[in-house]
Amino acid sequence: MHVAIPLYPRFTALDAVGPYTVLAFAPGFTVTFVAARPGEILDDRGSLSLTATKSYADLPYPDVIIVPGGPGTAEALHDPALLDWITAAHERTRWTTSVCSGSFLLGAAGLLKGRRATSHWGWLEHLTGFGAQPVSERVVVDDRIITAAGVSAGIDMALIVLARLTDVATAQTVQLAMEYDPRPPFDAGSPRTAPAGLAERALSLIG
Amino acid sequence: MHVAIPLYPRFTALDAVGPYTVLAFAPGFTVTFVAARPGEILDDRGSLSLTATKSYADLPYPDVIIVPGGPGTAEALHDPALLDWITAAHERTRWTTSVCSGSFLLGAAGLLKGRRATSHWGWLEHLTGFGAQPVSERVVVDDRIITAAGVSAGIDMALIVLARLTDVATAQTVQLAMEYDPRPPFDAGSPRTAPAGLAERALSLIG
Repeated sequence: MHVAIPLYPRFTALDAVGPYTVLAFAPGFTVTFVAARPGEILDDRGSLSLTATKSYADLPYPDVIIVPGGPGTAEALHDPALLDWITAAHERTRWTTSVCSGSFLLGAAGLLKGRRATSHWGWLEHLTGFGAQPVSERVVVDDRIITAAGVSAGIDMALIVLARLTDVATAQTVQLAMEYDPRPPFDAGSPRTAPAGLAERALSLIG
Repeated sequence: MHVAIPLYPRFTALDAVGPYTVLAFAPGFTVTFVAARPGEILDDRGSLSLTATKSYADLPYPDVIIVPGGPGTAEALHDPALLDWITAAHERTRWTTSVCSGSFLLGAAGLLKGRRATSHWGWLEHLTGFGAQPVSERVVVDDRIITAAGVSAGIDMALIVLARLTDVATAQTVQLAMEYDPRPPFDAGSPRTAPAGLAERALSLIG
Protein backbone atom coordinates (compact mmCIF):
# COMPACT_ATOMS: atom_id res chain seq x y z
CA MET A 1 0.00 0.00 0.00
CA HIS A 2 1.55 3.29 -1.07
CA VAL A 3 0.74 6.53 0.74
CA ALA A 4 1.87 9.94 -0.52
CA ILE A 5 2.00 13.13 1.55
CA PRO A 6 2.57 16.31 -0.48
CA LEU A 7 4.62 19.04 1.18
CA TYR A 8 4.59 22.72 0.31
CA PRO A 9 6.28 25.69 2.01
CA ARG A 10 4.77 26.67 5.39
CA PHE A 11 2.88 23.40 5.94
CA THR A 12 2.16 22.48 9.58
CA ALA A 13 4.51 19.67 10.57
CA LEU A 14 2.17 17.65 12.80
CA ASP A 15 -0.52 17.63 10.07
CA ALA A 16 1.91 15.53 8.06
CA VAL A 17 3.83 13.62 10.72
CA GLY A 18 0.82 12.48 12.76
CA PRO A 19 -0.78 10.46 9.93
CA TYR A 20 2.68 9.52 8.65
CA THR A 21 3.48 7.80 11.93
CA VAL A 22 0.24 5.82 11.97
CA LEU A 23 0.59 4.57 8.41
CA ALA A 24 4.38 4.14 8.33
CA PHE A 25 4.09 1.86 11.39
CA ALA A 26 1.55 -0.34 9.58
CA PRO A 27 2.89 -3.57 8.07
CA GLY A 28 3.06 -3.46 4.28
CA PHE A 29 2.67 0.31 4.02
CA THR A 30 5.15 2.70 2.41
CA VAL A 31 4.76 6.43 2.98
CA THR A 32 6.51 8.92 0.71
CA PHE A 33 6.76 12.68 1.04
CA VAL A 34 6.38 14.34 -2.36
CA ALA A 35 6.73 17.91 -3.63
CA ALA A 36 7.13 19.84 -6.85
CA ARG A 37 10.80 18.93 -6.68
CA PRO A 38 12.54 16.61 -4.20
CA GLY A 39 14.32 18.44 -1.40
CA GLU A 40 13.84 20.02 1.99
CA ILE A 41 10.56 21.85 2.63
CA LEU A 42 10.38 24.40 5.45
CA ASP A 43 7.37 24.39 7.78
CA ASP A 44 5.13 27.19 9.05
CA ARG A 45 7.35 27.96 12.04
CA GLY A 46 10.45 28.26 9.88
CA SER A 47 12.28 25.87 12.19
CA LEU A 48 11.54 22.38 10.82
CA SER A 49 12.41 20.94 7.42
CA LEU A 50 11.07 17.65 6.14
CA THR A 51 12.57 16.12 3.01
CA ALA A 52 10.42 15.27 0.01
CA THR A 53 12.12 12.33 -1.69
CA LYS A 54 9.98 12.26 -4.84
CA SER A 55 8.39 14.76 -7.19
CA TYR A 56 4.69 14.74 -8.02
CA ALA A 57 5.58 13.27 -11.41
CA ASP A 58 7.46 10.42 -9.73
CA LEU A 59 4.38 9.24 -7.86
CA PRO A 60 1.23 9.96 -9.86
CA TYR A 61 -1.03 7.19 -8.53
CA PRO A 62 -0.57 6.44 -4.82
CA ASP A 63 -3.24 4.37 -3.08
CA VAL A 64 -3.77 7.05 -0.44
CA ILE A 65 -2.95 10.75 -0.38
CA ILE A 66 -2.83 12.86 2.78
CA VAL A 67 -2.81 16.61 2.19
CA PRO A 68 -1.59 18.57 5.22
CA GLY A 69 -2.66 22.10 6.08
CA GLY A 70 -0.89 25.16 7.38
CA PRO A 71 -0.59 28.88 6.65
CA GLY A 72 1.13 27.97 3.37
CA THR A 73 -2.22 26.75 2.09
CA ALA A 74 -2.97 30.33 1.02
CA GLU A 75 -0.20 30.21 -1.59
CA ALA A 76 -0.64 26.51 -2.37
CA LEU A 77 -4.24 27.20 -3.44
CA HIS A 78 -2.70 28.85 -6.51
CA ASP A 79 -0.12 26.13 -7.24
CA PRO A 80 -1.32 24.28 -10.36
CA ALA A 81 1.36 21.56 -10.02
CA LEU A 82 0.00 20.56 -6.61
CA LEU A 83 -3.68 20.92 -7.49
CA ASP A 84 -3.33 19.02 -10.78
CA TRP A 85 -1.52 16.21 -8.97
CA ILE A 86 -4.31 15.99 -6.37
CA THR A 87 -7.01 15.97 -9.06
CA ALA A 88 -5.32 13.28 -11.15
CA ALA A 89 -4.24 11.13 -8.19
CA HIS A 90 -7.78 11.18 -6.78
CA GLU A 91 -9.08 9.40 -9.88
CA ARG A 92 -7.30 6.24 -8.74
CA THR A 93 -6.80 6.55 -4.96
CA ARG A 94 -8.55 4.31 -2.52
CA TRP A 95 -8.70 7.22 -0.06
CA THR A 96 -8.07 10.91 -0.65
CA THR A 97 -7.59 12.66 2.68
CA SER A 98 -6.64 15.96 4.27
CA VAL A 99 -5.77 17.42 7.64
CA CYS A 100 -6.67 20.94 8.83
CA SER A 101 -6.67 23.52 6.01
CA GLY A 102 -5.47 20.80 3.65
CA SER A 103 -9.18 20.38 2.90
CA PHE A 104 -9.10 23.73 1.09
CA LEU A 105 -6.58 22.20 -1.31
CA LEU A 106 -8.94 19.28 -1.95
CA GLY A 107 -11.60 21.93 -2.56
CA ALA A 108 -9.42 23.92 -4.93
CA ALA A 109 -8.72 20.68 -6.80
CA GLY A 110 -12.47 20.41 -7.36
CA LEU A 111 -13.08 17.40 -5.14
CA LEU A 112 -15.46 18.76 -2.50
CA LYS A 113 -18.42 20.05 -4.51
CA GLY A 114 -21.58 18.96 -2.71
CA ARG A 115 -19.59 16.97 -0.18
CA ARG A 116 -19.51 17.05 3.61
CA ALA A 117 -16.05 18.05 4.84
CA THR A 118 -14.19 19.49 7.82
CA SER A 119 -11.14 21.65 8.56
CA HIS A 120 -9.59 23.56 11.45
CA TRP A 121 -12.35 25.10 13.62
CA GLY A 122 -11.03 28.59 12.89
CA TRP A 123 -11.62 28.38 9.15
CA LEU A 124 -14.34 25.76 8.83
CA GLU A 125 -16.81 28.05 7.08
CA HIS A 126 -14.33 28.77 4.29
CA LEU A 127 -15.21 25.32 2.93
CA THR A 128 -18.43 26.77 1.53
CA GLY A 129 -16.29 28.69 -0.98
CA PHE A 130 -15.43 25.34 -2.56
CA GLY A 131 -19.03 24.15 -2.72
CA ALA A 132 -18.60 21.89 0.33
CA GLN A 133 -20.86 21.52 3.35
CA PRO A 134 -18.79 22.34 6.46
CA VAL A 135 -19.20 19.80 9.26
CA SER A 136 -17.87 20.42 12.75
CA GLU A 137 -16.62 16.90 13.45
CA ARG A 138 -13.19 15.46 14.18
CA VAL A 139 -13.15 13.31 11.02
CA VAL A 140 -15.63 13.41 8.13
CA VAL A 141 -15.97 10.56 5.63
CA ASP A 142 -17.80 11.23 2.35
CA ASP A 143 -17.40 8.54 -0.29
CA ARG A 144 -13.63 8.14 -0.85
CA ILE A 145 -12.76 11.50 0.70
CA ILE A 146 -11.86 11.84 4.37
CA THR A 147 -11.16 15.22 5.92
CA ALA A 148 -9.85 15.80 9.43
CA ALA A 149 -10.13 18.80 11.74
CA GLY A 150 -7.13 20.84 12.89
CA VAL A 151 -3.51 19.68 13.15
CA SER A 152 -3.65 16.82 15.68
CA ALA A 153 -6.86 15.39 14.19
CA GLY A 154 -4.81 13.71 11.48
CA ILE A 155 -3.79 11.02 13.96
CA ASP A 156 -7.41 10.01 14.58
CA MET A 157 -8.14 10.19 10.86
CA ALA A 158 -5.20 7.97 9.91
CA LEU A 159 -6.29 5.27 12.37
CA ILE A 160 -9.73 5.26 10.70
CA VAL A 161 -8.14 5.03 7.24
CA LEU A 162 -5.87 2.22 8.40
CA ALA A 163 -8.79 0.23 9.85
CA ARG A 164 -10.66 0.53 6.55
CA LEU A 165 -7.65 -0.47 4.46
CA THR A 166 -6.74 -3.43 6.68
CA ASP A 167 -8.83 -4.37 9.72
CA VAL A 168 -9.61 -3.03 13.16
CA ALA A 169 -7.03 -5.25 14.88
CA THR A 170 -4.22 -3.85 12.71
CA ALA A 171 -5.24 -0.27 13.48
CA GLN A 172 -5.47 -1.10 17.19
CA THR A 173 -2.02 -2.68 17.03
CA VAL A 174 -0.54 0.50 15.57
CA GLN A 175 -2.39 2.58 18.16
CA LEU A 176 -0.82 0.43 20.89
CA ALA A 177 2.63 0.62 19.27
CA MET A 178 2.52 4.41 19.32
CA GLU A 179 0.90 4.38 22.78
CA TYR A 180 -1.87 6.62 21.53
CA ASP A 181 -3.74 6.79 24.81
CA PRO A 182 -4.04 10.57 24.95
CA ARG A 183 -4.22 12.35 28.30
CA PRO A 184 -4.36 16.08 27.54
CA PRO A 185 -3.62 17.96 30.76
CA PHE A 186 -6.39 20.47 29.92
CA ASP A 187 -9.76 20.25 28.21
CA ALA A 188 -9.11 23.13 25.85
CA GLY A 189 -8.64 21.46 22.47
CA SER A 190 -11.96 22.56 21.01
CA PRO A 191 -13.73 25.94 21.02
CA ARG A 192 -16.64 24.08 22.65
CA THR A 193 -14.56 23.31 25.74
CA ALA A 194 -11.80 25.94 25.87
CA PRO A 195 -12.10 28.82 28.34
CA ALA A 196 -13.75 31.90 26.85
CA GLY A 197 -11.45 34.36 25.14
CA LEU A 198 -8.79 31.94 23.95
CA ALA A 199 -10.00 31.53 20.38
CA GLU A 200 -8.62 34.80 19.02
CA ARG A 201 -5.32 34.25 20.79
CA ALA A 202 -5.12 30.73 19.34
CA LEU A 203 -5.74 31.91 15.79
CA SER A 204 -3.11 34.63 16.14
CA LEU A 205 -0.53 31.92 16.92
CA ILE A 206 -1.08 30.03 13.68
CA GLY A 207 -2.40 32.63 11.23
CA MET B 1 12.90 30.48 25.49
CA HIS B 2 15.13 28.13 23.53
CA VAL B 3 14.22 24.46 23.11
CA ALA B 4 16.60 21.92 21.57
CA ILE B 5 15.60 18.52 20.19
CA PRO B 6 18.53 16.20 19.42
CA LEU B 7 18.12 13.88 16.45
CA TYR B 8 19.99 10.64 15.83
CA PRO B 9 19.54 7.97 13.14
CA ARG B 10 16.38 5.85 13.50
CA PHE B 11 14.59 8.21 15.88
CA THR B 12 10.78 8.02 15.88
CA ALA B 13 9.44 11.08 14.08
CA LEU B 14 6.35 11.75 16.20
CA ASP B 15 8.43 11.63 19.40
CA ALA B 16 10.15 14.76 18.11
CA VAL B 17 7.43 16.47 16.07
CA GLY B 18 4.64 16.17 18.67
CA PRO B 19 6.44 18.24 21.34
CA TYR B 20 7.99 20.42 18.62
CA THR B 21 4.53 21.48 17.47
CA VAL B 22 3.37 22.38 20.96
CA LEU B 23 6.42 24.46 21.81
CA ALA B 24 7.01 25.98 18.36
CA PHE B 25 3.42 27.30 18.41
CA ALA B 26 4.05 29.03 21.76
CA PRO B 27 4.78 32.76 21.62
CA GLY B 28 8.41 33.61 22.37
CA PHE B 29 9.68 30.03 21.92
CA THR B 30 12.31 28.90 19.44
CA VAL B 31 12.79 25.20 18.80
CA THR B 32 15.95 23.93 17.14
CA PHE B 33 16.79 20.42 15.94
CA VAL B 34 20.39 19.56 16.75
CA ALA B 35 22.66 16.63 15.90
CA ALA B 36 26.32 15.70 15.89
CA ARG B 37 26.56 17.57 12.59
CA PRO B 38 23.86 19.66 10.87
CA GLY B 39 22.05 17.84 8.08
CA GLU B 40 19.25 15.43 7.32
CA ILE B 41 18.60 12.64 9.84
CA LEU B 42 16.65 9.56 8.72
CA ASP B 43 13.93 8.15 10.98
CA ASP B 44 13.15 4.62 12.13
CA ARG B 45 10.94 3.85 9.11
CA GLY B 46 13.63 4.97 6.66
CA SER B 47 11.06 7.19 4.93
CA LEU B 48 11.22 10.53 6.78
CA SER B 49 14.16 12.91 7.14
CA LEU B 50 14.18 15.87 9.48
CA THR B 51 16.93 18.45 9.19
CA ALA B 52 19.14 19.32 12.14
CA THR B 53 20.19 22.93 11.64
CA LYS B 54 22.76 23.11 14.45
CA SER B 55 25.41 20.87 15.96
CA TYR B 56 25.53 20.01 19.65
CA ALA B 57 28.46 22.42 19.97
CA ASP B 58 26.38 25.22 18.46
CA LEU B 59 23.74 24.98 21.18
CA PRO B 60 25.28 23.87 24.45
CA TYR B 61 22.83 25.50 26.88
CA PRO B 62 19.20 25.46 25.73
CA ASP B 63 16.49 26.20 28.29
CA VAL B 64 14.69 22.95 27.52
CA ILE B 65 15.85 19.73 25.87
CA ILE B 66 13.51 17.08 24.50
CA VAL B 67 15.15 13.74 23.76
CA PRO B 68 13.08 11.57 21.39
CA GLY B 69 13.12 7.78 21.38
CA GLY B 70 13.08 5.15 18.69
CA PRO B 71 14.89 1.96 17.72
CA GLY B 72 18.02 4.06 17.13
CA THR B 73 18.29 4.52 20.88
CA ALA B 74 20.20 1.23 21.01
CA GLU B 75 23.10 2.74 19.07
CA ALA B 76 22.68 6.23 20.54
CA LEU B 77 23.26 4.78 24.03
CA HIS B 78 26.89 4.41 22.97
CA ASP B 79 27.24 7.86 21.34
CA PRO B 80 29.44 9.95 23.66
CA ALA B 81 28.80 13.17 21.70
CA LEU B 82 25.07 12.92 22.36
CA LEU B 83 25.36 11.72 25.96
CA ASP B 84 27.97 14.35 26.88
CA TRP B 85 25.77 17.05 25.37
CA ILE B 86 22.78 15.87 27.42
CA THR B 87 24.83 15.73 30.62
CA ALA B 88 26.31 19.20 30.16
CA ALA B 89 23.09 20.81 28.92
CA HIS B 90 21.16 19.43 31.89
CA GLU B 91 23.33 21.41 34.28
CA ARG B 92 21.65 24.60 33.07
CA THR B 93 18.27 23.58 31.61
CA ARG B 94 15.00 24.59 33.19
CA TRP B 95 13.52 21.27 32.03
CA THR B 96 15.25 18.16 30.73
CA THR B 97 12.71 15.91 29.05
CA SER B 98 12.34 12.75 26.99
CA VAL B 99 9.74 10.85 25.00
CA CYS B 100 9.49 7.05 24.75
CA SER B 101 12.89 5.31 24.84
CA GLY B 102 14.54 8.73 24.92
CA SER B 103 14.46 8.23 28.70
CA PHE B 104 17.15 5.56 28.28
CA LEU B 105 19.41 8.27 26.87
CA LEU B 106 18.76 10.43 29.92
CA GLY B 107 19.62 7.35 31.96
CA ALA B 108 22.81 6.70 30.02
CA ALA B 109 23.76 10.34 30.59
CA GLY B 110 23.54 9.62 34.32
CA LEU B 111 20.48 11.74 35.03
CA LEU B 112 17.97 9.17 36.31
CA LYS B 113 19.72 7.58 39.30
CA GLY B 114 17.17 7.25 42.08
CA ARG B 115 14.55 9.08 40.04
CA ARG B 116 11.02 8.15 39.01
CA ALA B 117 10.76 7.94 35.21
CA THR B 118 8.71 6.46 32.41
CA SER B 119 9.16 5.17 28.85
CA HIS B 120 7.26 3.17 26.23
CA TRP B 121 5.19 0.43 27.93
CA GLY B 122 7.13 -2.25 26.07
CA TRP B 123 10.47 -1.38 27.60
CA LEU B 124 9.55 0.35 30.82
CA GLU B 125 11.39 -2.10 33.07
CA HIS B 126 14.68 -1.37 31.25
CA LEU B 127 14.81 1.88 33.22
CA THR B 128 15.99 -0.07 36.26
CA GLY B 129 19.27 -0.64 34.42
CA PHE B 130 19.95 3.09 34.78
CA GLY B 131 19.11 3.18 38.48
CA ALA B 132 15.67 4.69 37.85
CA GLN B 133 12.34 3.67 39.31
CA PRO B 134 9.99 2.80 36.41
CA VAL B 135 6.55 4.39 36.69
CA SER B 136 3.67 3.39 34.43
CA GLU B 137 2.23 6.85 33.89
CA ARG B 138 1.73 9.01 30.82
CA VAL B 139 4.07 11.76 32.07
CA VAL B 140 6.38 11.61 35.08
CA VAL B 141 7.86 14.74 36.68
CA ASP B 142 10.82 14.34 39.06
CA ASP B 143 12.58 17.57 39.95
CA ARG B 144 13.66 19.18 36.63
CA ILE B 145 13.33 15.94 34.67
CA ILE B 146 10.13 15.05 32.84
CA THR B 147 9.78 11.74 31.01
CA ALA B 148 6.87 10.77 28.76
CA ALA B 149 5.52 7.36 27.77
CA GLY B 150 5.56 6.07 24.19
CA VAL B 151 5.62 8.15 20.98
CA SER B 152 2.36 10.18 21.15
CA ALA B 153 2.79 10.91 24.88
CA GLY B 154 5.22 13.70 24.01
CA ILE B 155 2.29 15.92 23.07
CA ASP B 156 0.77 15.66 26.55
CA MET B 157 4.20 16.14 28.11
CA ALA B 158 4.98 19.27 26.09
CA LEU B 159 1.68 20.89 27.15
CA ILE B 160 2.64 20.29 30.78
CA VAL B 161 6.10 21.76 30.20
CA LEU B 162 4.60 24.78 28.45
CA ALA B 163 2.15 25.44 31.29
CA ARG B 164 5.02 25.36 33.79
CA LEU B 165 7.21 27.66 31.70
CA THR B 166 4.44 30.15 31.00
CA ASP B 167 0.94 29.72 32.43
CA VAL B 168 -2.07 27.46 32.02
CA ALA B 169 -3.86 29.88 29.68
CA THR B 170 -0.93 29.89 27.24
CA ALA B 171 -0.80 26.09 27.18
CA GLN B 172 -4.56 25.93 26.66
CA THR B 173 -4.26 28.44 23.82
CA VAL B 174 -1.70 26.26 22.05
CA GLN B 175 -3.87 23.19 22.68
CA LEU B 176 -6.78 25.00 21.02
CA ALA B 177 -4.60 26.21 18.12
CA MET B 178 -3.56 22.63 17.36
CA GLU B 179 -7.11 21.38 18.01
CA TYR B 180 -5.77 18.78 20.42
CA ASP B 181 -9.14 17.35 21.32
CA PRO B 182 -8.23 13.70 20.70
CA ARG B 183 -10.89 11.23 19.62
CA PRO B 184 -9.10 7.91 19.08
CA PRO B 185 -11.46 5.61 17.15
CA PHE B 186 -10.44 2.68 19.37
CA ASP B 187 -9.49 2.30 23.04
CA ALA B 188 -6.31 0.38 22.33
CA GLY B 189 -3.54 2.84 23.12
CA SER B 190 -2.44 1.18 26.34
CA PRO B 191 -1.77 -2.46 27.20
CA ARG B 192 -4.33 -1.98 29.98
CA THR B 193 -7.12 -1.35 27.45
CA ALA B 194 -5.99 -3.01 24.20
CA PRO B 195 -7.52 -6.36 23.20
CA ALA B 196 -5.51 -9.34 24.40
CA GLY B 197 -2.79 -10.57 22.11
CA LEU B 198 -1.91 -7.27 20.44
CA ALA B 199 1.12 -6.40 22.57
CA GLU B 200 3.59 -8.74 20.85
CA ARG B 201 2.34 -7.68 17.43
CA ALA B 202 2.71 -4.02 18.42
CA LEU B 203 6.28 -4.48 19.61
CA SER B 204 7.20 -6.32 16.41
CA LEU B 205 6.14 -3.24 14.42
CA ILE B 206 8.54 -0.91 16.18
CA GLY B 207 11.36 -3.11 17.44
